Amino acid sequence: MATLGFVGLGVMGGRIAKRLLDAGHRVSGYNRTAAKAQSLVAAGMRLADSPRAVAAGADVTFSMVTDTSALHAVTDGPDGILAGLGPGKTYVDMSTVSPAASRALAERVRERGAEMLDAPVSGSVATLEEGRLSVMVGGPAAAVERVRPILLDIGPVVTHVGGNGQAVLMKVATNLSLAVQMLAFSESVRLAERGGIDRKTAVHVLLNSVIASPMLKYRGPFVLQMPEDAWFDCTMMQKDMLLALEMGRALRVPLPTTAATNELLTAARAMGLAEQDFAALFEVLVRLSSPHPGTESGRAG
Amino acid sequence: MATLGFVGLGVMGGRIAKRLLDAGHRVSGYNRTAAKAQSLVAAGMRLADSPRAVAAGADVTFSMVTDTSALHAVTDGPDGILAGLGPGKTYVDMSTVSPAASRALAERVRERGAEMLDAPVSGSVATLEEGRLSVMVGGPAAAVERVRPILLDIGPVVTHVGGNGQAVLMKVATNLSLAVQMLAFSESVRLAERGGIDRKTAVHVLLNSVIASPMLKYRGPFVLQMPEDAWFDCTMMQKDMLLALEMGRALRVPLPTTAATNELLTAARAMGLAEQDFAALFEVLVRLSSPHPGTESGRAG
Amino acid sequence: MATLGFVGLGVMGGRIAKRLLDAGHRVSGYNRTAAKAQSLVAAGMRLADSPRAVAAGADVTFSMVTDTSALHAVTDGPDGILAGLGPGKTYVDMSTVSPAASRALAERVRERGAEMLDAPVSGSVATLEEGRLSVMVGGPAAAVERVRPILLDIGPVVTHVGGNGQAVLMKVATNLSLAVQMLAFSESVRLAERGGIDRKTAVHVLLNSVIASPMLKYRGPFVLQMPEDAWFDCTMMQKDMLLALEMGRALRVPLPTTAATNELLTAARAMGLAEQDFAALFEVLVRLSSPHPGTESGRAG
Amino acid sequence: MATLGFVGLGVMGGRIAKRLLDAGHRVSGYNRTAAKAQSLVAAGMRLADSPRAVAAGADVTFSMVTDTSALHAVTDGPDGILAGLGPGKTYVDMSTVSPAASRALAERVRERGAEMLDAPVSGSVATLEEGRLSVMVGGPAAAVERVRPILLDIGPVVTHVGGNGQAVLMKVATNLSLAVQMLAFSESVRLAERGGIDRKTAVHVLLNSVIASPMLKYRGPFVLQMPEDAWFDCTMMQKDMLLALEMGRALRVPLPTTAATNELLTAARAMGLAEQDFAALFEVLVRLSSPHPGTESGRAG
Repeated sequence: MATLGFVGLGVMGGRIAKRLLDAGHRVSGYNRTAAKAQSLVAAGMRLADSPRAVAAGADVTFSMVTDTSALHAVTDGPDGILAGLGPGKTYVDMSTVSPAASRALAERVRERGAEMLDAPVSGSVATLEEGRLSVMVGGPAAAVERVRPILLDIGPVVTHVGGNGQAVLMKVATNLSLAVQMLAFSESVRLAERGGIDRKTAVHVLLNSVIASPMLKYRGPFVLQMPEDAWFDCTMMQKDMLLALEMGRALRVPLPTTAATNELLTAARAMGLAEQDFAALFEVLVRLSSPHPGTESGRAG
Repeated sequence: MATLGFVGLGVMGGRIAKRLLDAGHRVSGYNRTAAKAQSLVAAGMRLADSPRAVAAGADVTFSMVTDTSALHAVTDGPDGILAGLGPGKTYVDMSTVSPAASRALAERVRERGAEMLDAPVSGSVATLEEGRLSVMVGGPAAAVERVRPILLDIGPVVTHVGGNGQAVLMKVATNLSLAVQMLAFSESVRLAERGGIDRKTAVHVLLNSVIASPMLKYRGPFVLQMPEDAWFDCTMMQKDMLLALEMGRALRVPLPTTAATNELLTAARAMGLAEQDFAALFEVLVRLSSPHPGTESGRAG
Repeated sequence: MATLGFVGLGVMGGRIAKRLLDAGHRVSGYNRTAAKAQSLVAAGMRLADSPRAVAAGADVTFSMVTDTSALHAVTDGPDGILAGLGPGKTYVDMSTVSPAASRALAERVRERGAEMLDAPVSGSVATLEEGRLSVMVGGPAAAVERVRPILLDIGPVVTHVGGNGQAVLMKVATNLSLAVQMLAFSESVRLAERGGIDRKTAVHVLLNSVIASPMLKYRGPFVLQMPEDAWFDCTMMQKDMLLALEMGRALRVPLPTTAATNELLTAARAMGLAEQDFAALFEVLVRLSSPHPGTESGRAG
Repeated sequence: MATLGFVGLGVMGGRIAKRLLDAGHRVSGYNRTAAKAQSLVAAGMRLADSPRAVAAGADVTFSMVTDTSALHAVTDGPDGILAGLGPGKTYVDMSTVSPAASRALAERVRERGAEMLDAPVSGSVATLEEGRLSVMVGGPAAAVERVRPILLDIGPVVTHVGGNGQAVLMKVATNLSLAVQMLAFSESVRLAERGGIDRKTAVHVLLNSVIASPMLKYRGPFVLQMPEDAWFDCTMMQKDMLLALEMGRALRVPLPTTAATNELLTAARAMGLAEQDFAALFEVLVRLSSPHPGTESGRAG
């Protein structure tokens, strides 16, 4: 078992660190808000003072934060991960950031004699806890093989998709389908419901049909009861859609359903649903297909 | 075991009839082109002279044809199914037709003292043969319960969704998600590919991710190698999309991703891909994101 | 001056009949609700008992009704226009119906020894009254030339676009741009407004810019104040969009902005705006970009 | 007549400078490539050594460059416009840049005791030369009134839309309608053409209908014959669409037709039409509705 480090112990990061502990690894961790790491400490994790300390004491350091600026906050500066890296060490970032940002960071890691991999995960908390998380990895093949046994402790499918930055590209390419599938599912449910079929029955039928992806299996029921806490909220999902649309323009790939869905995520945010799970796309469709209780402009309505 | 009839022994209908024979039922069948039924006769099916004869000799008669006009061709006239129905008999139509046409036919069945159910299936030949077909049923509850044991010989999930016509509504509502999921998947694959990831690797990763619905599991690989024979071609899929869009307008439910996808099915047909499996949506996206080998209008290109 | 007949004296039809009277023609007319024709009678029009009587007494008979079924109501049966037609007469239908329906009717007119033209107009009441209406004509060239002087009394631009049915095709092809331009204009106004520019100022600037089509010049101000009576309501506009989308599928022409706009016309109808002018597309966009005053589903909002 | 300066003498900038000279103003100018300014020098313009020199010698300095980075290239540094500005001077930027960038620059101008206005124009070279250009202005009212007489020498409609940055916002909001109108027009033309109407006839009818905006009047004929040089190419148009879509997300305004059109501009670029006028959207639609001469993937086509 290797000595591991983990920076960023949020909803997903914390659970991944827990799996690594459960698999028998020694793990030291860091989180901006230390209090959130208490249950992990109870489970055997050592708490470090800084991202640098984590990286300095580990063979393989993981990080998982929300976006590019959060990534720079934990990698840069005198207390950052980079400062703790050196020859023989491997740094695995599991965040979803732009491929270009990831490639640039890998270059700086290489300058310190270490290797970086981008390894975003596809799936939710539920997928992770069921032990079915799929991990994509980008970076040099030798480094990938070195950490593969550890990644397999996180999830059963580890796929080396290409060089640095290509796993985050693959992740973003995957995530556009999440949002589009959710909106198409919403169209299916709402059409059935308006045709007289009970919403619950419609969801049941759809989730037993060939369209029932693992994502819809866990998120589809949200159209019956939204969760208290979003698993992945509209703001986060739109961040990923923007990464996809930006890459689509740069790589000259039109993304018609992605673009259409993204505009309804904007609508969700305008309607006050920004912090709800992106299953709120269903709610947008409900509002688009219902008489309106009030109106901003004078006569209409 | 009941005495059953089956009218319309095409790709799906024939295989369903085979499952009923395998389950031990007595089945008599009819197909416009009798030759296509030979393997079923070899498996024990009796061949009848007309749809009427099938219905006259059976407790429960099934039909499965391509559209509303084909349905009328087997139900109407002196040799039609209706003429063979009477008190105590049940007629189960598994075709995908408009809910209104299905309801109107149920009314005529009722006038003859029989009961009709609409029971379209969601899934493909592959799903059927794996014994995982989902059957939705519309019609009176008593009739549904009467035939439920037989329907369970077709597939493991039988859901009573509502009155006459509501199962075809549910089917159409389901199918819109098929096409949209396929186009979103195509956007995911093409974006990854243009970003430098091997097409085969992209497909592999996506089919091991949370977006991998059963439909994508079998249809996704078509973007690597299209099948010789379409499982469900662009023309058929557009027929279902039109039923969805018409119902959307009638029921006042906007269907943004359905509408966007439908226009690219039109493009597929314009490009000469009408008879290919609707996975050809990927090919449309490839053409939209590639330099063009020639052009119709003068200067451009 | 010729002896003319006019069947269908509604908002547009009545005003066109008035222009023909003003130009010095003898006009006999028919309207299902005779009362609506009183002002025309005061202006010199003779009122006939039936569409047949109108056609029997006129060299050239015009009709203008709302859709295909209304057209059949005035052309068919013992009292219909067809019964009053004969050799040497010309029948000009100005309604917007499907090209196929128009061609079929032209065939029946030809069987009676007469000629039919389809001559839908592009423009509104305002355009007509300003004497700027554009008339498209479909049908045999000789018949077009015969009635051209009369059509020029209606509007200054008369264009022979092709054979029977092609003018209604051209009309439908034109009208799709009306709705799309209105929605794009709404996006322009709403974006400016949300960025802090007064709605009135935004409209003023846009209507003095290069996007200001004649249609936007008269309809754009509706986003400031909707008219009491719709000029062309959402239901009517969606009827034309459907004709366009159906032809697009039949002729294999993808219509991406038409399809996107059509879904928001569905939303307008769902929201209770069906009978408002289709400038209500702006209101749909306002609702899509505003916090919601209430909600159908439990937790959201 | 005031003493004016003009930095950026490209296609539009040069022609605007010419109008100012023709109106009797003293104008000194600067262009990165001095050769391009020769005809203006012949018309009486004095050529300056640097943007700074232009601003130092003028009461009112104009600039018109392609994007934000080009703007910084002429405003910043020891030779930049800012260095030449001081109390009593006014700086008018006519470029289309992001509202935020414009506001930030206005702040820096103010620190030097001068005032800045953003004054992008809506319209093309043709509109300008016909003396029908519409000018939107953002900035302090007093400064607007001071330069209004000069702006009226450029075009007949000068509208003060709000504070700094709001004129560029208004410009971007306007431009989204340009692209959408062009695509809708293309759908209209292509539908008519596929229905059997000559393309030239279809264009003629549409440009005499109520959809004929000034923009379509000059750009519509491009679908018959593309110009040798783009008036506004796909790359430039997509730049403006992106500004619109970014603002739409920031301000929470869904822009459905803008998003759909933008994806087809991406397709135009992928197809090799990036440097053609954005009327190339028609060509994209032609390719989407035509049998394909070849294909990238194996079996399809």
